[in-house]
Amino acid sequence: MDNKRDILTLLRAVASGEATPEDALLELKEAPFEDLGYAKVDFHRAVRQGSAEVIYGAGKTPEQISGIVAAMHGRGCGNILITRLSPEAARLVGESCELEYHAGPRLGIAWRRADTPALGHIVVATGGTSDLPVAEEAALTAEVMGNRISRVYDVGVAGLHRLLARLDTLMSARCVIAVAGMEGALASVVGGLVDCPVLAVPTSVGYGASFGGLSALLAMLNSCASGSAVVNIDNGFGAGYLASMINQMEGLKE
Amino acid sequence: MDNKRDILTLLRAVASGEATPEDALLELKEAPFEDLGYAKVDFHRAVRQGSAEVIYGAGKTPEQISGIVAAMHGRGCGNILITRLSPEAARLVGESCELEYHAGPRLGIAWRRADTPALGHIVVATGGTSDLPVAEEAALTAEVMGNRISRVYDVGVAGLHRLLARLDTLMSARCVIAVAGMEGALASVVGGLVDCPVLAVPTSVGYGASFGGLSALLAMLNSCASGSAVVNIDNGFGAGYLASMINQMEGLKE
Amino acid sequence: MDNKRDILTLLRAVASGEATPEDALLELKEAPFEDLGYAKVDFHRAVRQGSAEVIYGAGKTPEQISGIVAAMHGRGCGNILITRLSPEAARLVGESCELEYHAGPRLGIAWRRADTPALGHIVVATGGTSDLPVAEEAALTAEVMGNRISRVYDVGVAGLHRLLARLDTLMSARCVIAVAGMEGALASVVGGLVDCPVLAVPTSVGYGASFGGLSALLAMLNSCASGSAVVNIDNGFGAGYLASMINQMEGLKE
Amino acid sequence: MDNKRDILTLLRAVASGEATPEDALLELKEAPFEDLGYAKVDFHRAVRQGSAEVIYGAGKTPEQISGIVAAMHGRGCGNILITRLSPEAARLVGESCELEYHAGPRLGIAWRRADTPALGHIVVATGGTSDLPVAEEAALTAEVMGNRISRVYDVGVAGLHRLLARLDTLMSARCVIAVAGMEGALASVVGGLVDCPVLAVPTSVGYGASFGGLSALLAMLNSCASGSAVVNIDNGFGAGYLASMINQMEGLKE
Amino acid sequence: MDNKRDILTLLRAVASGEATPEDALLELKEAPFEDLGYAKVDFHRAVRQGSAEVIYGAGKTPEQISGIVAAMHGRGCGNILITRLSPEAARLVGESCELEYHAGPRLGIAWRRADTPALGHIVVATGGTSDLPVAEEAALTAEVMGNRISRVYDVGVAGLHRLLARLDTLMSARCVIAVAGMEGALASVVGGLVDCPVLAVPTSVGYGASFGGLSALLAMLNSCASGSAVVNIDNGFGAGYLASMINQMEGLKE
Amino acid sequence: MDNKRDILTLLRAVASGEATPEDALLELKEAPFEDLGYAKVDFHRAVRQGSAEVIYGAGKTPEQISGIVAAMHGRGCGNILITRLSPEAARLVGESCELEYHAGPRLGIAWRRADTPALGHIVVATGGTSDLPVAEEAALTAEVMGNRISRVYDVGVAGLHRLLARLDTLMSARCVIAVAGMEGALASVVGGLVDCPVLAVPTSVGYGASFGGLSALLAMLNSCASGSAVVNIDNGFGAGYLASMINQMEGLKE
Amino acid sequence: MDNKRDILTLLRAVASGEATPEDALLELKEAPFEDLGYAKVDFHRAVRQGSAEVIYGAGKTPEQISGIVAAMHGRGCGNILITRLSPEAARLVGESCELEYHAGPRLGIAWRRADTPALGHIVVATGGTSDLPVAEEAALTAEVMGNRISRVYDVGVAGLHRLLARLDTLMSARCVIAVAGMEGALASVVGGLVDCPVLAVPTSVGYGASFGGLSALLAMLNSCASGSAVVNIDNGFGAGYLASMINQMEGLKE
Amino acid sequence: MDNKRDILTLLRAVASGEATPEDALLELKEAPFEDLGYAKVDFHRAVRQGSAEVIYGAGKTPEQISGIVAAMHGRGCGNILITRLSPEAARLVGESCELEYHAGPRLGIAWRRADTPALGHIVVATGGTSDLPVAEEAALTAEVMGNRISRVYDVGVAGLHRLLARLDTLMSARCVIAVAGMEGALASVVGGLVDCPVLAVPTSVGYGASFGGLSALLAMLNSCASGSAVVNIDNGFGAGYLASMINQMEGLKE
Repeated sequence: MDNKRDILTLLRAVASGEATPEDALLELKEAPFEDLGYAKVDFHRAVRQGSAEVIYGAGKTPEQISGIVAAMHGRGCGNILITRLSPEAARLVGESCELEYHAGPRLGIAWRRADTPALGHIVVATGGTSDLPVAEEAALTAEVMGNRISRVYDVGVAGLHRLLARLDTLMSARCVIAVAGMEGALASVVGGLVDCPVLAVPTSVGYGASFGGLSALLAMLNSCASGSAVVNIDNGFGAGYLASMINQMEGLKE
Repeated sequence: MDNKRDILTLLRAVASGEATPEDALLELKEAPFEDLGYAKVDFHRAVRQGSAEVIYGAGKTPEQISGIVAAMHGRGCGNILITRLSPEAARLVGESCELEYHAGPRLGIAWRRADTPALGHIVVATGGTSDLPVAEEAALTAEVMGNRISRVYDVGVAGLHRLLARLDTLMSARCVIAVAGMEGALASVVGGLVDCPVLAVPTSVGYGASFGGLSALLAMLNSCASGSAVVNIDNGFGAGYLASMINQMEGLKE
Repeated sequence: MDNKRDILTLLRAVASGEATPEDALLELKEAPFEDLGYAKVDFHRAVRQGSAEVIYGAGKTPEQISGIVAAMHGRGCGNILITRLSPEAARLVGESCELEYHAGPRLGIAWRRADTPALGHIVVATGGTSDLPVAEEAALTAEVMGNRISRVYDVGVAGLHRLLARLDTLMSARCVIAVAGMEGALASVVGGLVDCPVLAVPTSVGYGASFGGLSALLAMLNSCASGSAVVNIDNGFGAGYLASMINQMEGLKE
Repeated sequence: MDNKRDILTLLRAVASGEATPEDALLELKEAPFEDLGYAKVDFHRAVRQGSAEVIYGAGKTPEQISGIVAAMHGRGCGNILITRLSPEAARLVGESCELEYHAGPRLGIAWRRADTPALGHIVVATGGTSDLPVAEEAALTAEVMGNRISRVYDVGVAGLHRLLARLDTLMSARCVIAVAGMEGALASVVGGLVDCPVLAVPTSVGYGASFGGLSALLAMLNSCASGSAVVNIDNGFGAGYLASMINQMEGLKE
Repeated sequence: MDNKRDILTLLRAVASGEATPEDALLELKEAPFEDLGYAKVDFHRAVRQGSAEVIYGAGKTPEQISGIVAAMHGRGCGNILITRLSPEAARLVGESCELEYHAGPRLGIAWRRADTPALGHIVVATGGTSDLPVAEEAALTAEVMGNRISRVYDVGVAGLHRLLARLDTLMSARCVIAVAGMEGALASVVGGLVDCPVLAVPTSVGYGASFGGLSALLAMLNSCASGSAVVNIDNGFGAGYLASMINQMEGLKE
Repeated sequence: MDNKRDILTLLRAVASGEATPEDALLELKEAPFEDLGYAKVDFHRAVRQGSAEVIYGAGKTPEQISGIVAAMHGRGCGNILITRLSPEAARLVGESCELEYHAGPRLGIAWRRADTPALGHIVVATGGTSDLPVAEEAALTAEVMGNRISRVYDVGVAGLHRLLARLDTLMSARCVIAVAGMEGALASVVGGLVDCPVLAVPTSVGYGASFGGLSALLAMLNSCASGSAVVNIDNGFGAGYLASMINQMEGLKE
Repeated sequence: MDNKRDILTLLRAVASGEATPEDALLELKEAPFEDLGYAKVDFHRAVRQGSAEVIYGAGKTPEQISGIVAAMHGRGCGNILITRLSPEAARLVGESCELEYHAGPRLGIAWRRADTPALGHIVVATGGTSDLPVAEEAALTAEVMGNRISRVYDVGVAGLHRLLARLDTLMSARCVIAVAGMEGALASVVGGLVDCPVLAVPTSVGYGASFGGLSALLAMLNSCASGSAVVNIDNGFGAGYLASMINQMEGLKE
Repeated sequence: MDNKRDILTLLRAVASGEATPEDALLELKEAPFEDLGYAKVDFHRAVRQGSAEVIYGAGKTPEQISGIVAAMHGRGCGNILITRLSPEAARLVGESCELEYHAGPRLGIAWRRADTPALGHIVVATGGTSDLPVAEEAALTAEVMGNRISRVYDVGVAGLHRLLARLDTLMSARCVIAVAGMEGALASVVGGLVDCPVLAVPTSVGYGASFGGLSALLAMLNSCASGSAVVNIDNGFGAGYLASMINQMEGLKE
């Protein structure tokens, strides 16, 4: 049972007499999550949506991660993303499941599904080469969620011609993810060039007064370009996830 | 001439021989903006999109604002939003144009159009009553851009029942704008309840360690709920604008 | 002699003639602490209260820690907590005393007492699995101080159903410790659901704009839920100690 | 109907057959809050607990505040606290209700009840005279919630004898609220002297590197005294509310 | 006597016997500054360079400012800049000298000289209209120091076509001053387009997470465009002064 | 009775039999402070030392200030300093006592004594004219405490010759107070030139990235000159008080 | 084709008929950069200017760095600077190209050219010996760009005589780079002594409240000396590059 | 020749004719420092004062440190302090000089002199055992500069009786160095108990919201106790040096 609309519906059914309390109880007992003690794992959502569920790998032991993956896979989940996964942890986790590991973004994809579609069009752009790990986290997240991705890398604003040379690609996107560290100006410039939503991802690339990504974060929050919003520093996953939601929006029915 | 795709097209037409340099020059001379000295005003975009163009009112004199409004209106623009507009400036600006002024959000709407549609469904939710001015900036922005808005105010997470009582409304949204100050938890809780994109707007409501909205901003950037992104503190306009873009997305064509 | 009420009483006894200055002097000479040069160790308090005394392990050499433990144990103390104790230091300290070491929270318990009671009811809740080390520091602290603990882990606000499924446990608590990193919203939501004091523990779990726990700290300080207070980032010990005091409050005598 | 335990009980009654869905529906319709559009006001809680409900006055218009007060009073609430209430707003609000206004702490108490008890013992201590407004917010809050208060003002740690002269009063407290700006050391010193919980309230008193209370806040969060926790800068209300909860704890039943 | 090279020369002359100690003493007595008690005013430099000397107006009384102006003018100085000069102070100062006051940048120019040349070419560009006051401080400073200025205002990066339309002007500059608030991206984009030094001036224009210009400052310090440097927030004077030095550099002699 | 050495002596006298408990009690009853309710005023110290006692004026009502002054004066105190005293408060306070008010430093001196000596030599130096108010707070504080003061104002490091011209005065000091805002370099340069202790006072003079004195504070804390220490931003009083203690040190007896 | 002036010229040639669209197309196809996938490398600029192009080494794999160097060298570039290059990466990169590696500043120079001139005069000064790595990054950058460099190291302001002893060297510079950590006062003092532009480079040298260079950065931004500007913390490259531009300015033609 | 008073005297002698320029030149040539290229070492000062000169070890290579030590020793210096000296560097430096190394404070003393006196009385107090390394840096610095030191360690304010038990020692000091991390309250409490100058040293001891010593630093800067000043975080050397200057002050001659 899904933990949102369905619970509401169930309660209404009880209240209206359509369902007996016994049935409701039974359905509720089929808990929408499994309690592993150290974690409470959501199954239904991932199964139903056919898309990626995510495990935040930092601060979890490899055993805990493996346990969560096993529980999810046991219920039929695939395309399970594990972010902030260290190479050592990946080696251990990979012993108990089919794991595709990307060392740059430190991202694991457990039980990747071959049949994932590639819908619509999301562009992932970066200011520099050093932003690639974060960009790849965004791109891979969106890919496993069923979106078509174009990578437009190293198009920082200090060399506008590199960006303008890819204007065609940018303009055909339904959503752009702009990944940049240092002064984070890419989001503003892209935001002024395209008509679709722009998701800005500040990165911790830089030194000195970049203060671990703070400079790019503040710049992106203050962007004078309309139509953009910001996710956490280095949060490629978050941008990829939201971009997928936007890219796959159904059209308005009038 | 639109300042994006069209310029590219024009340059290609020149390069390919489809357009003579003279024609191109002529079109380019019809500048895509009008230079008022203190401002360079974009016309075509607003005219073409039939939606709101925005003037950032802070730091501009009433004369400058009036000048920009006049230039835009002269080219056929309506629904011109003026943000951060003080009551005194509003009085002066209102002498030279038809101005609807909202004192709470300090928002002016010049030459509002009666024929604006109300498409789709955007929910604007607030944590408390004190967040209303920012919420109204978002709601009014989205309204003048042609969206249907539901206001779900004062549903902060410290009284979950108030939020759950409006679950139906929230779940029918195509995009939710979550406006909250202080601990900014509304975005996370809403993000966990709905399936659509959530745009988080931190507000400067609070005192002490809220540091002018910093606490809510950081909390929202660190939201553990997937599918959300953040705009600047008190930036109701930005959230309303992006929500409109998302709400009015065309469906994927397969 | 206890260093609080008793000193005052003694001085009064001297002043009122009930005690001779000689007796007072004698009692004062039995110093309420032992001076090891690098540390001044309080004995009486721990002996009298039968509860845990704490050694802050960071910045102390294993020799210093062992010396303090030995001095305390020599006076009859047990249940001696050593926080921020590295595995290497634990190995060395364990050579000279009976040490129970918890690697996750980096917490040592020297000379643990088997006869510790389990009074009342304290709930320790976490937003995620990665918050476990801090939560365990709180839970173990409260346990060795004689309290009954329920662990409710991984109930972050982005999946409300997980939290609501444990509502019974939460509502039966006399004090709740809410441990969360990132946006730290758990404290606010729990604070709105229960009637007892809520102690919020921000954790350094997160990345980017969590700034080492700052985001959770600020969010918790700005909680709109009444009846809560905050301890330092990752300070599980402090929360466990205060929760024990609250849980073991005597009832009001009218 | 109370919004916590009662809803759970009701749902169980429906599920177990003890209550008919119709009855449940009826009870649920008696909403636990009243929706004023700009605010959703909780009644049952305040009525049932006989204690103060609070309205955060900042960012609300006098009309909104008056409306909320009227709605609460209409349901039988008294002792309604209004924090951060400006003198001008107090004048306007006072026209439509019986309002006791305290200019120092900018605190209003609407429809104060004469029959409030004065139970247990809470001490409110301040570092200096300039901390009085915040201390009074705490003291008045706790008073209207039915607690006995002792005020121990201007006992900052730079003149220890002033604090030690009031040791008797401090030691008889069931909870101490330590209010201090600048270096905020009062909480640590008091925490080392008493055996009861200490709630630390940093104030924005000070200048320069006090950074609006940040210095006191950080000092209090880092207190080396066990048994204390911290509320937001200048949040006298929060400390008074939690102190009341602690002071009125029932004793453990064995 | 100039306070730099000349003093050294004088001392050498004494040491080498070219000047008698008496002569040296005499020259030294002609103090290179005049002590007004509250200020020590440098004359020689301004006289010799024929350019602007600056008085920082904030925190000085109108009497002090007038005194400094009078002392300078008495020694032949003109084009005396007074920054951060409030309108009220300007009125008072203007009573005792010939003062040209610019209300936008709050800049006074006392005893402006008609014969100031307009050498070379400095471009002052701004991101928005709200940056004008700071830009004018820079432009006026450079003008009174004898430079030719082109103003390129409201060419923020979210509308690149506005900037590109002025590329000719930008490229003919010997130094560009890029003035921008909010995300401060203008400096990076301009820096990538021109070959001359770019001086970046962050402004306090913006709200929320612009934190009084911090966002623009950090962005500019982290600019990925080579050939730029940054001055203090809102420091139009500093940029204008340095731009003048760069613009008037003598060519290398080989 | 003085609250320091004397209390200890008294307690020893009781313990050794030299004093009867009754005498001790009597002496202790002559409280070392007077409790005004809102303030606890120390008398003995000021009387004995013949020097200034200080009242921090901010956050106190004029009535409270007047009450404290009256209580002190009633016990024979003079030279009572009142810092952060607004002109309005000064007017009211001045109605009930003999008050010398300095508007620049916002400093009041109640019941100033004519017979104050002028011992030793303290130099107060400032970087600029705008630092005068803080410098005067330091200078006046030290003056009423009986020290001889030399004012060396507007000798900022960007014009070294102004500072070097006063080298004689600086070198004859027993303690130098270096007052500077902006980059706060004065303390380092002076510290490298003199042999006596240097007390650095950062001021909030400046704008933009001076962040209210933070830049000067950090610079002074990081001074590479040995022999200096720092007080709070704008804390002229603190520097003056400590400088007086240092200036009046007795010589070492061998 | 150069990506600046030349593109504009080309477009004008097309528009005016001087160039056929076909020619223009051809020239444009000779892309001004080479796309390596992970990087877009600018060639023409470096070739044409005969000066250094820079690769930011941090966050790039040795393979990526080698690839970029190879691409650049293949087009005739020399003097290729690689900043933030770790010793291990340097070893790997050095296997595929002629690499001069400087361990202190972690700077690589690939394919250094023997025929680089040494024009004009740039002084690089440091506050202390610990600032050398950053200073060397600046000095080497400027050297490979064809400038004559004087190193004036360890002349911090706490020992003015060391600085004054090198006054001759400083005064003969066309541009001074002032490198300092801690309190960063060197820039201000040097700025007051010389007549040429001063580029301030804050370094992360220091501890405690230097906060990784923040203290020096803020101090330098707030310098009261006119004629200076600031680059990012530890950004020796940026200062060296800009100093080269300034040093090699052509003289004004009248 | 000393670089202060003596230079001035020399110049005057030249000007007055007492010295010939030739003699002056000769004396000036005997440079007051030796230029090692990477460092400019001051000799005369250390020789003359018979006290410690300091080398800041961080960021210097062992070779550089050894070179400076050798140069100083060659001119007769002893008691050479090397702060922030890593154990590895100490081993290397120790090969070329007589080095006493203290691992806790990471402090080296090269060529320590046996005949150093122990004058006056300085107390070094710490809040906890973890503050010892910083306290020892202060104590050792003051010791090699010829002062008598009393160590009063682990007397934090949360256990006042430990501090009060050493009141005798504290009160006999001519200067107290108060070393504390976390909430840094020790300085305020000690400042209220003693009559001599108190130098506060914040330490980076702590975790979470201690932010590397920031909490203690701010608390100490905001101390409400008069007569204290603050040095940089962990700057034991600075406090020891200044305490020595104060302790060895000559008495006022009247």
